[in-house]
Amino acid sequence: MATLARLHEQGFIDLIARLSRRSRVRPIIGIGDDAASLALPPRSRTLFTTDLLTEGIHFRSRTTPGLLLGRKALSVNLSDIAAMGGAPHACVVSVGFPRRTRAAYAADVALGLVQQARRFGVTIVGGDTCASRSLTLSVALLGLVERGGAVRRSGARKGDGLFVSGHLGGSTAGLALLRRGARLGDGMRLTGLRLTPGLRRHAAAAVRRHLDPTPRVLFGRALGLTGLATSMIDLSDGLTPDLQRLCHASGAGAIVEEAAIPIDPAARALMKRRRAIEAALIGGEDYELLFTARMEHETLIARVARRLRLPVARIGEILPRRDGIRVLNREGRYRPLPRGGFEHFRISRPRH
Amino acid sequence: MATLARLHEQGFIDLIARLSRRSRVRPIIGIGDDAASLALPPRSRTLFTTDLLTEGIHFRSRTTPGLLLGRKALSVNLSDIAAMGGAPHACVVSVGFPRRTRAAYAADVALGLVQQARRFGVTIVGGDTCASRSLTLSVALLGLVERGGAVRRSGARKGDGLFVSGHLGGSTAGLALLRRGARLGDGMRLTGLRLTPGLRRHAAAAVRRHLDPTPRVLFGRALGLTGLATSMIDLSDGLTPDLQRLCHASGAGAIVEEAAIPIDPAARALMKRRRAIEAALIGGEDYELLFTARMEHETLIARVARRLRLPVARIGEILPRRDGIRVLNREGRYRPLPRGGFEHFRISRPRH
Repeated sequence: MATLARLHEQGFIDLIARLSRRSRVRPIIGIGDDAASLALPPRSRTLFTTDLLTEGIHFRSRTTPGLLLGRKALSVNLSDIAAMGGAPHACVVSVGFPRRTRAAYAADVALGLVQQARRFGVTIVGGDTCASRSLTLSVALLGLVERGGAVRRSGARKGDGLFVSGHLGGSTAGLALLRRGARLGDGMRLTGLRLTPGLRRHAAAAVRRHLDPTPRVLFGRALGLTGLATSMIDLSDGLTPDLQRLCHASGAGAIVEEAAIPIDPAARALMKRRRAIEAALIGGEDYELLFTARMEHETLIARVARRLRLPVARIGEILPRRDGIRVLNREGRYRPLPRGGFEHFRISRPRH
Repeated sequence: MATLARLHEQGFIDLIARLSRRSRVRPIIGIGDDAASLALPPRSRTLFTTDLLTEGIHFRSRTTPGLLLGRKALSVNLSDIAAMGGAPHACVVSVGFPRRTRAAYAADVALGLVQQARRFGVTIVGGDTCASRSLTLSVALLGLVERGGAVRRSGARKGDGLFVSGHLGGSTAGLALLRRGARLGDGMRLTGLRLTPGLRRHAAAAVRRHLDPTPRVLFGRALGLTGLATSMIDLSDGLTPDLQRLCHASGAGAIVEEAAIPIDPAARALMKRRRAIEAALIGGEDYELLFTARMEHETLIARVARRLRLPVARIGEILPRRDGIRVLNREGRYRPLPRGGFEHFRISRPRH
């Protein structure tokens, strides 16, 4: 079996360079020099973000096809640019591969990175590969946004509606299935679990949701360009912890109606009702957008979302800071804020 | 003993934010949102590079003070921007810490990053921290350079002089000492080896050279601004492999005079003559600049270097491609090109 030891250090980045030839953004200097050189448009602000995926914490290579790992390493960064209302532009990639990594797996990671970059109009302009004890992927992504156009976490005001895109809890359901032995094989077919055809369809959707999330780049961009969102954050750690961040940055409180939370159909089909609600409230990695907007813009927001064929739901309202963050359950009672979420240093068990 | 498990995920980045308050470049949006936002000067090109340091390959945390590890993670990237003739500007940092990491060590890493950023006029505008099986630091750095001002690897032409800044082989000598038990303790004092006072001074210099290299940012910038360098690369993997890269990119060959190579005084004092020469030829991580320039500019180059108190040496000449790369030894004979250098997938033993 060909392992990565046969590729010399530059091999992975060279492969990315070859695969990236048809990219949209043409750098002045691309892969192959000490640094890339870009001609960024003069009137924009430059957004800059980075996210790291590391084996045993964010994924296990045994359960994660290389193609999807490459895609996800870019997706988590695309989601950050989306949450600022920006357009992703160019990125660099740092990868540490254990020596035992199969060359085919590394090539799949490269292909996944390039696929996702092309899909979202991003060019990979540089990178660094080296040997590493555990598989690590770090992407740093540049985006562009109009002056004054970036949507911050800090703009939520009392009386704003609280909105979320897509469905929540699907990624957590998918992670639970991976832990129980589910695998995505060739052609993204689900194996490893005995399920009825109906449940199998949901299970495959949940696992794909976890391994191959779709960053809401166009919707975030639409909210940024129109100025509809007063504040925004992407849901990487979970609805509750990320809402806390948004409220903290805005100096605000919030009320969330449990009944209004769009629970992922797969989570609903595969989990008990209470667990599905918990997954939606504190499960991470859905990479949907949580944002606030003035109540009178609700119809407009729904129209934008419909054009992009993305569900959007109003799940609550921004309150004064002193009211804190409250969740109203179906019985009309406040429930204590669930604890947890995917903050890596707070949970003692690994995430897979 | 306080371990990193007590810091929540955002703790490390918050610490960087607190330490960075007096930074030169003020981002429009800094640490604490989904992405940073920068107002880059409209007439410049933007340079973009990334480099990854990972435990057991690039360093051992047991032998590397956290402060120097933080500095070095930035230095290796600064060296890339220097090699393009650019000015470093802003960076993001991704760090994976094993759960057992002591909080004091992590805080030292943060301080080292911020120290080096401040020293070179860079602002840390964002980052990501998570748990990881092995300690990993990835920095992505933006630099600025005038339109058409970037110094590429590909501009070397037949008859150009081949120059190198500083001294070579010191980092390799330092690494050898670390393997033999040398340590840098508090106040950067050398411990762990019995040496005469004279050798101790050299040994301390070599170990510092390895753990705390100085990127040649001002000299690279001067060569870029003046247009004196026709091509340039930084010496991360070693003189021979990096010269091969420069020649390959330029479609050229080169001759190097062994006697003209500026061997690090510490390497000379601590190693046998042949080993010191090998360290200078194929030892990595000196982070000096290797560049080419027209012969008639040699005096001018020497003057620029003298102002910056940096030695510079002409070590050879660019030849036509068909002549390959040759090293002329002190006896006036061509010697075969030494193999090796720090290419991570080619060496079977770890580097420490």
